[in-house]
Amino acid sequence: MVLMTSANTTTGPTSATTPVTPAPVTVLGLGDMGSSLARAFVAAGHPTTVWNRSPGKGEDVVSLGAVRAASAEEAVRASGLVVVCLVDYDASDAVLEPLAGALEGRVLVNLTSDTPARSRQAAAWAEKHSLAYLDGAIMVPVDVVGSAQALVFHSGDRAAFEAHESSLKALGEPATFLGEDPGLAAAYDMAVLDFFYGAMGGLVHAFALARAEGIDGASLAPYLNTIAGILPPIAAYTAKHVDTRSYASEGANLAMMAASVDHILHTAKDRGLDVSQLAALKGVTDRAIAEGHGPDSWSSIVEVMAAGH
Amino acid sequence: MVLMTSANTTTGPTSATTPVTPAPVTVLGLGDMGSSLARAFVAAGHPTTVWNRSPGKGEDVVSLGAVRAASAEEAVRASGLVVVCLVDYDASDAVLEPLAGALEGRVLVNLTSDTPARSRQAAAWAEKHSLAYLDGAIMVPVDVVGSAQALVFHSGDRAAFEAHESSLKALGEPATFLGEDPGLAAAYDMAVLDFFYGAMGGLVHAFALARAEGIDGASLAPYLNTIAGILPPIAAYTAKHVDTRSYASEGANLAMMAASVDHILHTAKDRGLDVSQLAALKGVTDRAIAEGHGPDSWSSIVEVMAAGH
Repeated sequence: MVLMTSANTTTGPTSATTPVTPAPVTVLGLGDMGSSLARAFVAAGHPTTVWNRSPGKGEDVVSLGAVRAASAEEAVRASGLVVVCLVDYDASDAVLEPLAGALEGRVLVNLTSDTPARSRQAAAWAEKHSLAYLDGAIMVPVDVVGSAQALVFHSGDRAAFEAHESSLKALGEPATFLGEDPGLAAAYDMAVLDFFYGAMGGLVHAFALARAEGIDGASLAPYLNTIAGILPPIAAYTAKHVDTRSYASEGANLAMMAASVDHILHTAKDRGLDVSQLAALKGVTDRAIAEGHGPDSWSSIVEVMAAGH
Repeated sequence: MVLMTSANTTTGPTSATTPVTPAPVTVLGLGDMGSSLARAFVAAGHPTTVWNRSPGKGEDVVSLGAVRAASAEEAVRASGLVVVCLVDYDASDAVLEPLAGALEGRVLVNLTSDTPARSRQAAAWAEKHSLAYLDGAIMVPVDVVGSAQALVFHSGDRAAFEAHESSLKALGEPATFLGEDPGLAAAYDMAVLDFFYGAMGGLVHAFALARAEGIDGASLAPYLNTIAGILPPIAAYTAKHVDTRSYASEGANLAMMAASVDHILHTAKDRGLDVSQLAALKGVTDRAIAEGHGPDSWSSIVEVMAAGH
């Protein structure tokens, strides 16, 4: 799933340092992202075949040198690496179902964005047809694809990934292989976005609270950057706490931080703001404290969020 | 309100470049933060008088050179600048109420952490007694106070701030004056923490989702840093949208991003995770879309969060 915009991301062409002659690739689906993938392959020198179900899409990609196939099957037969990027797995399943025969002996990379469960279903279909399958997730906006900043996750058939890694690097370097569970790329995608949207909910709520207190956004924003800056070290030790399931508090403990959440909640409520997210968070901290995690670190709320895991 | 821990913050003494002879200061309250404030004043060369309601606190500060007063009134009369830092405003009100006479002609800086409303009440009390009043918020952990990284907000009496700015810099440079509304320091504090806790809720939920999908925290954490890195430019344009109340979408619009939130919500729900925060966020986006903000930017949810403001 693609994040927002590329407001601050510098883009540039991928350095083509590989001595390998670029292999033929096929892209099925020429929406915004599919077209962007095709452009990246063309830019990296790959003979690129493209196809889109409905006509009138991808003119720009063809003008750059991609070859438009008359049918999906013709497109598939043109290359050893077939990348599909459609609106969701209902669409990609519909396109791929009749192509099982044509895909035989090739590598299918599904960069359609959906849930880990749908990725695993698609991989099961591929396995039933003895097809080499990779499932991926593009973590950057359309205009960043193909640059050194372009993070693309892959998971599934490791041999297939290794055989086509040099081609996949055209989309972004390094191409990232997460493991053989084909749901992993989507799972990482979901987890990363889970953090992103939590932060994005808090971000706008901070501006809402500021507005209600007569503070304009431009005055507040620089101080929010201070927060963004401390999140990476916090993520690192939170990871350690979560992985070891030991939540020793070194600074403020959960009880102290929950009191702080309660402060914010009441301040926002007094101003008539929507406090549904804060109330949900407060509920989580309350339950964690009820389970004895008050003296533990904030990270211990994972035991409430992922109870049973 | 103080953030978590100082895991990654480098600390160091404040550079004493001011040619001014350090003025006498008084610190009322020697809890962890009060002691830290007193240590910073002592380190910057200020004759520092301290007092704590209950005995046995602040021995370390006295050993560094601070003078312990026999009473709060004696402490107040020792300096032109009186800093109070207690557990909350109930405590600070109780300590300050009998000191109105002694505080006359001095500047009172209340660094106790509470809501903007409590800060304004305390300022009103000070005004009733014709006292010069500043209300502040310390945005860094105890062990960062006094360093160049120590962000301390002040609001209230501008002349009082300017008269004592060089002393207040001992706590952290630059000393930040936000405006004459004495509630501003607490309001900025609350808004900054609102973002912080939104991000901290999403952060732990991301690890919860990863755990449920068989991904360990250490594997996920580096990708979360990528998200932290894109937040400052997003904060900048969100501020612009919020301030202008125009929410033109340049990349993904609210409808697309709300669909992404829904994806995460269902993935998490299928794994049996707590989804109360995601559900609350989904509710906010649903209402914003119902109000016609679907094609607008994500920032437009501020109109639902701060309806009427």
